[in-house]
Amino acid sequence: MTAIGIYGSAGRMGRAIADLIEVEGATLAGGADSRDDPLPLARAADVLVDFSTAGALDAHLAAARTAGTAIVIGTTGLSAQQHAAIDAAAAEIAVLQTGNTSLGVTLLSILVREAAARLGADWDIEVLEMHHRHKVDAPSGTALLLGEAAAAGRGTSLSELRVDGRAGLVGARTEGTIGMASLRGGSVVGDHSVIFASEGERIELNHRADARSIFAKGAVRAALWLAGQAPGRYRMGDVLGL
Amino acid sequence: MTAIGIYGSAGRMGRAIADLIEVEGATLAGGADSRDDPLPLARAADVLVDFSTAGALDAHLAAARTAGTAIVIGTTGLSAQQHAAIDAAAAEIAVLQTGNTSLGVTLLSILVREAAARLGADWDIEVLEMHHRHKVDAPSGTALLLGEAAAAGRGTSLSELRVDGRAGLVGARTEGTIGMASLRGGSVVGDHSVIFASEGERIELNHRADARSIFAKGAVRAALWLAGQAPGRYRMGDVLGL
Amino acid sequence: MTAIGIYGSAGRMGRAIADLIEVEGATLAGGADSRDDPLPLARAADVLVDFSTAGALDAHLAAARTAGTAIVIGTTGLSAQQHAAIDAAAAEIAVLQTGNTSLGVTLLSILVREAAARLGADWDIEVLEMHHRHKVDAPSGTALLLGEAAAAGRGTSLSELRVDGRAGLVGARTEGTIGMASLRGGSVVGDHSVIFASEGERIELNHRADARSIFAKGAVRAALWLAGQAPGRYRMGDVLGL
Amino acid sequence: MTAIGIYGSAGRMGRAIADLIEVEGATLAGGADSRDDPLPLARAADVLVDFSTAGALDAHLAAARTAGTAIVIGTTGLSAQQHAAIDAAAAEIAVLQTGNTSLGVTLLSILVREAAARLGADWDIEVLEMHHRHKVDAPSGTALLLGEAAAAGRGTSLSELRVDGRAGLVGARTEGTIGMASLRGGSVVGDHSVIFASEGERIELNHRADARSIFAKGAVRAALWLAGQAPGRYRMGDVLGL
Repeated sequence: MTAIGIYGSAGRMGRAIADLIEVEGATLAGGADSRDDPLPLARAADVLVDFSTAGALDAHLAAARTAGTAIVIGTTGLSAQQHAAIDAAAAEIAVLQTGNTSLGVTLLSILVREAAARLGADWDIEVLEMHHRHKVDAPSGTALLLGEAAAAGRGTSLSELRVDGRAGLVGARTEGTIGMASLRGGSVVGDHSVIFASEGERIELNHRADARSIFAKGAVRAALWLAGQAPGRYRMGDVLGL
Repeated sequence: MTAIGIYGSAGRMGRAIADLIEVEGATLAGGADSRDDPLPLARAADVLVDFSTAGALDAHLAAARTAGTAIVIGTTGLSAQQHAAIDAAAAEIAVLQTGNTSLGVTLLSILVREAAARLGADWDIEVLEMHHRHKVDAPSGTALLLGEAAAAGRGTSLSELRVDGRAGLVGARTEGTIGMASLRGGSVVGDHSVIFASEGERIELNHRADARSIFAKGAVRAALWLAGQAPGRYRMGDVLGL
Repeated sequence: MTAIGIYGSAGRMGRAIADLIEVEGATLAGGADSRDDPLPLARAADVLVDFSTAGALDAHLAAARTAGTAIVIGTTGLSAQQHAAIDAAAAEIAVLQTGNTSLGVTLLSILVREAAARLGADWDIEVLEMHHRHKVDAPSGTALLLGEAAAAGRGTSLSELRVDGRAGLVGARTEGTIGMASLRGGSVVGDHSVIFASEGERIELNHRADARSIFAKGAVRAALWLAGQAPGRYRMGDVLGL
Repeated sequence: MTAIGIYGSAGRMGRAIADLIEVEGATLAGGADSRDDPLPLARAADVLVDFSTAGALDAHLAAARTAGTAIVIGTTGLSAQQHAAIDAAAAEIAVLQTGNTSLGVTLLSILVREAAARLGADWDIEVLEMHHRHKVDAPSGTALLLGEAAAAGRGTSLSELRVDGRAGLVGARTEGTIGMASLRGGSVVGDHSVIFASEGERIELNHRADARSIFAKGAVRAALWLAGQAPGRYRMGDVLGL
């Protein structure tokens, strides 16, 4: 049985993952938080999952690398430097970093890329998300993931096309851009929409997360899959064979 | 029969209004654009409708005041000074200024005010709109109108509560604020949603305009109603007796 | 402190109510199921809540009447005879029967009635709901409640206007009817939409329940309010002073 | 230049197609209605489009076959016998029959098939559509087309899985079925949703037609493409190279 270690074990996702591990046929190697030394857990686990904070990630990644243990990173709001550190670690260990561990979002991102690729430039793309009132960053990691999927379908990256937070006399829409908008309120687990709008018709590809357990379930499945992989940087689509 | 004069008669709304005037039982007094002297039309008409631009409004309003002719103002993006000028004109003529002339939006704004008043502060409010790719300002005049209705239900004004364009590390949502978000794409005539989100449940009050003719129809009905009114500043709800 | 007794205490709603009673400042008088004699609980409680089954309701209502104890009935799928029995009981005890105990749905039904009353007969009304795959009846009790609110706004009752499950060559829509449609799938707690559609525009009034706890919370609040009332048949709107 | 002949030329779609033919770089060979002899038009045209009625189709198809002219059939509500007649004609002429000629719907149906194929049987599928109050059949041809795409993704056909119009004590949802629901109201051109619902999450794939011109545009493009094809039965996806 695969032994899973959890960084950020006292957080909401960490606890949800711990609750699911046995149901999914694994065992819990243990948990750690920012005040703990991350290395003993990295050595004890067959695979790690990190749902801590961007500030705590560096130490967790270094521990995984030292111990030679695969790691699923679900923490969002990472810097360019942290992404570079993940790439460097992936030369030695298996790393799967994702803004969203749900099966549904993973499939949706593939449909978004395909739609963006097949629909011409006269189809404008907008990404909309809504989350609970406690979320501190915008847009969500999942919205960025979906925006990247749309940009990939157009043969480029989101940073080239992204337009955030229209307000004021912003002028007519620039062809080819991808607009991002974020709503916050209540206890919404996570709603995402990618809208393709052309003259006279629209396609909307939506995902609604009704329960946080879907992310924990996907994270555990990703960890079980990643435990046996060669060093490299993986994505959720790989877990599903997409 | 009431004779209606149109400022902005060459624009999309101006032409749509001209097309509907006879169907609605009125006659066309004439049309004018920014290059025309606005006074002759103001004198010839029983009532004016203005769907020109914010820049052209001042001259139209002054002409209406000079001629003593009632005016429906549907132009959006007005400054605080222009609103003050409308208030001043309303001492002498009947003026109805609105960000949206549709019957549906007028009713929706009343439902929004009522919902905001009856739901406690633990229900977060967000306003979302989508319009066609050619629209140059954000949020739409209708979104602002709906945001004001929500703020009025909470006993204050939108300027006190409004949050635009979340992007970056914006922190947790502040209780009592009203978020505004704008999507742009394709040929969308106008979609608006006001979302009330609490712990475990959401209410969404939506309006979809599928055809621009609804605004022209509402504008003509507002003009017919306004023609007979005493000086004062009116709202679309007054037209419907709400 | 008010002592609440629960009929259907082993069901999902019954357990959720029991979990919330202390948080809401009440005490649990006890619970009973279909195999128990309902009278001892009716005598021990200050107020009863029933979330059992339509088949079990008659005995529970009779016990409440015998004991002279107020009762909140949240069980759905009641027959016309059962509604008559509730009316008869309401001459002796306070009874609140509702298809939905959420605050949001209660407000929505009032907005629906108002919209139906103010929008003319050229606005067609449709009611749509989605629930989880285990739900056995359609439409949901809440959809019927919303349909009744719309019919009341039009000055009649739903049974006069209702059209279920269009399929085949059904012909053009008959003016004034109210269409009902039901979707089933996954673990959806409960989504409801009332759509008003006219030439060129639509208003949609939606409610989404993301967590079942909203119904338990509303049921407890209704019970606390009902405990002090005179005999009569009450509605959720009364609890909120609407 | 390709000369297009229109059956059902006096209908709404027929007129919209005639309006677009020159913009799309073709010429109008002429139009015919049910009282006309269909053969002269079939002989005069390079390719035919049929948006008449199911009752009139047989004569139109026979004329196309006699004249050896390709035909795009957009008429809905066809019988099994008519589909067999189309198959028989396809041995001699190029025939493209479709429930929806929009580019957006064509892409959506491909995304639906892919989603149905990749998501397991624990994802329930529902198809929802809304159309204007004058539509006489339900579900729409497009809803059936999308239901077939979902069924194809599951390796079967819609007739095996379809559940229409839930109403009453219908029992829990049967795994693997595809529910169909139809809303009617106002002037809605055509909204379609395919919903995949699992434990804790949902994917919704939606299409909104805001203007009827999208169907005419797609029909003309299909006709231009079909004019040069060998005998056979084609689909809209073929036009787009999908």
